Amino acid sequence: MVPGGSLELSGERFAAVYRITGDESQARQRAREITVEQTIEFPAELVAPGAIHDHVLGRIESFQPAGAPGRGWEATISYALEVAGGELTQLINVVFGNVSLVPGIRLERLELSPSLHERFRGPRFGRRGLRRMFDAPRRPLLATAIKPMGLSTPELAGFAHRFALGGIDVVKDDHGLTDQSFGRYRERLLRCVEQVELANRKTGGRSIFMPNVTADGGEVFERAHLAREAGAGGLLVAPGLVGFDTVRALAEDDAIALPILSHPSYQGTYVAGRESGISHYALFGQLARLAGADGSIFPNYGGRFAFTREDCRSIAEGTAVEMGGVEPIFPAPGGGMSLEQIPDMLATYGRELIFLIGGALHRGEDLVATSAHFRRLAEEM
Amino acid sequence: MVPGGSLELSGERFAAVYRITGDESQARQRAREITVEQTIEFPAELVAPGAIHDHVLGRIESFQPAGAPGRGWEATISYALEVAGGELTQLINVVFGNVSLVPGIRLERLELSPSLHERFRGPRFGRRGLRRMFDAPRRPLLATAIKPMGLSTPELAGFAHRFALGGIDVVKDDHGLTDQSFGRYRERLLRCVEQVELANRKTGGRSIFMPNVTADGGEVFERAHLAREAGAGGLLVAPGLVGFDTVRALAEDDAIALPILSHPSYQGTYVAGRESGISHYALFGQLARLAGADGSIFPNYGGRFAFTREDCRSIAEGTAVEMGGVEPIFPAPGGGMSLEQIPDMLATYGRELIFLIGGALHRGEDLVATSAHFRRLAEEM
Repeated sequence: MVPGGSLELSGERFAAVYRITGDESQARQRAREITVEQTIEFPAELVAPGAIHDHVLGRIESFQPAGAPGRGWEATISYALEVAGGELTQLINVVFGNVSLVPGIRLERLELSPSLHERFRGPRFGRRGLRRMFDAPRRPLLATAIKPMGLSTPELAGFAHRFALGGIDVVKDDHGLTDQSFGRYRERLLRCVEQVELANRKTGGRSIFMPNVTADGGEVFERAHLAREAGAGGLLVAPGLVGFDTVRALAEDDAIALPILSHPSYQGTYVAGRESGISHYALFGQLARLAGADGSIFPNYGGRFAFTREDCRSIAEGTAVEMGGVEPIFPAPGGGMSLEQIPDMLATYGRELIFLIGGALHRGEDLVATSAHFRRLAEEM
Repeated sequence: MVPGGSLELSGERFAAVYRITGDESQARQRAREITVEQTIEFPAELVAPGAIHDHVLGRIESFQPAGAPGRGWEATISYALEVAGGELTQLINVVFGNVSLVPGIRLERLELSPSLHERFRGPRFGRRGLRRMFDAPRRPLLATAIKPMGLSTPELAGFAHRFALGGIDVVKDDHGLTDQSFGRYRERLLRCVEQVELANRKTGGRSIFMPNVTADGGEVFERAHLAREAGAGGLLVAPGLVGFDTVRALAEDDAIALPILSHPSYQGTYVAGRESGISHYALFGQLARLAGADGSIFPNYGGRFAFTREDCRSIAEGTAVEMGGVEPIFPAPGGGMSLEQIPDMLATYGRELIFLIGGALHRGEDLVATSAHFRRLAEEM
């Protein structure tokens, strides 16, 4: 038996909602296990009565059927604010760290508390900031990527120029472009920024180039600062590869102060199992936003990935749900999309989105004309 | 149609082995899709003949049934060395980034190439280094964690003292202990190092204290340097939360130069689905090792998680398989284990492991005596 603890806490708690499979008694037992697993990781019966039992352990706030029969159970579990320690890594650890190792438990959504929202301000720009940046108060925003990997930097920069001439708002690095020997980050950044600016001067537009800063260690920040100095308009980063906290640190850095698009690379497995992992809503909606992305890229339904329309709609909801003053961000569906899908996507998402179309723009006769057509479609919405 | 690319590459390639579900023709199609998805992400038919088709695209090196019928197909796909760009984040992006978003594809193992093994040296210590450090040429090593969260720092440091008196090699922070208001990192580090050293002076032993440096951004490195200065003997870090590359950077930092145990927090989902995600072997074996962990913590079979004996055995294999000169590391099974499981674990893993036992040590009458009993069991093996 260990002592019961005598710490004094604020009483403020945040919560996570889990969907748990199994019959009711199994699911209730699982919920009790979560309260231990995510906090003290210690046999609760060996802890004397006191503050640990009363405050440090997770607390089951509600337990109910998760909708239709067979869908399992939904448990809301709260944790003391202090357990998260004001760190994003630890917040994620508390809501889903060890639970990730237990099948049959899915993190459905986060219900944070006022102090956490003060600590994690989320996006620097958000939907409103990006709309101001592009002088686009109502229409969907447009994005594309320079690719394929293996072309020379001048060739890729030439594409960037033509996309911007056609009026694409965001011209980004393909997420596989980093700092390879056959295509160096710095040269690509400088050339592409130059080519996009040249196009803006011709058109009077406000297109931006957004390099990929997903990289090893401190290199992320070196590339981000270089991007800022070079006049890039934003940053692409994959939180699955560099950790959500790196996104937060980029978003909070006043010397960078650029919009961020998060890329879903290496995160797909979290949403692959309907009975484990994390919901689309929480992962690509709430967590991307909390970390500070201004737009969250994910695979659209009907493309070459397996997300359903409902999954995608839930992401859009997560990007906009009330989160204690954290600004809404843009859902940015992409992945093998074509212009023909735009009307259907509009019906699904409304106008509050970034359309991300990649290789399909090259199917037209002329890159500028196809891009301009894409832009006109957006303006007519 | 875009140009075919004229880049010249070394010809060196590394490979990943994927298990793909579905019938043979579907699986072959999936394998072809992987070669595109993980590299150019662009309609291959829109790329003119040339270096992109010949070298940049992934290449299917073999395709065969993955053992028993119904197990699916195993495809070995190689990638040009230069595509990984010498970065661990990009290496992981190439082998599993976007593929993570496609259900029915599981990353089974990595087959890296000589240049990548020169670039990624893996663990600084490995099994041999840790055995020297603890003067333990043959026996299994022993580890435990100070917990539960919520006790005062002096109480936790008192546990550290008694674990070390009993001869536990590694006394680590529980992975939920970070820098909370009720238990600051620095104070815990200093007190625990002091208490473990005090015990060593009494026993002549070589126990170490290993703080948890999983934290936000640059704070990981600040805590690691502080640990080094304070005389800690190693570092605990969760690559799922901070990214694998942070482990690499810690392992390569000559000013830190401490052994590292990786913790599986937030990584469980990758192994939860048998038909998607990453194999236990690749994730907790090969990747943890490649990143530079000296020991890889994972949930033992028979504990409170759902890993099978076969899963665990495969992790042990991944920690030791030939990897171009990268040292073998210790599997460190834990998670709700008790002393009674030791004989069975020995039969499963042999002596090349770190036994990680947490809360169960508190079930005995006296922490020192129970720890000493644990140590004797290990020495008799």
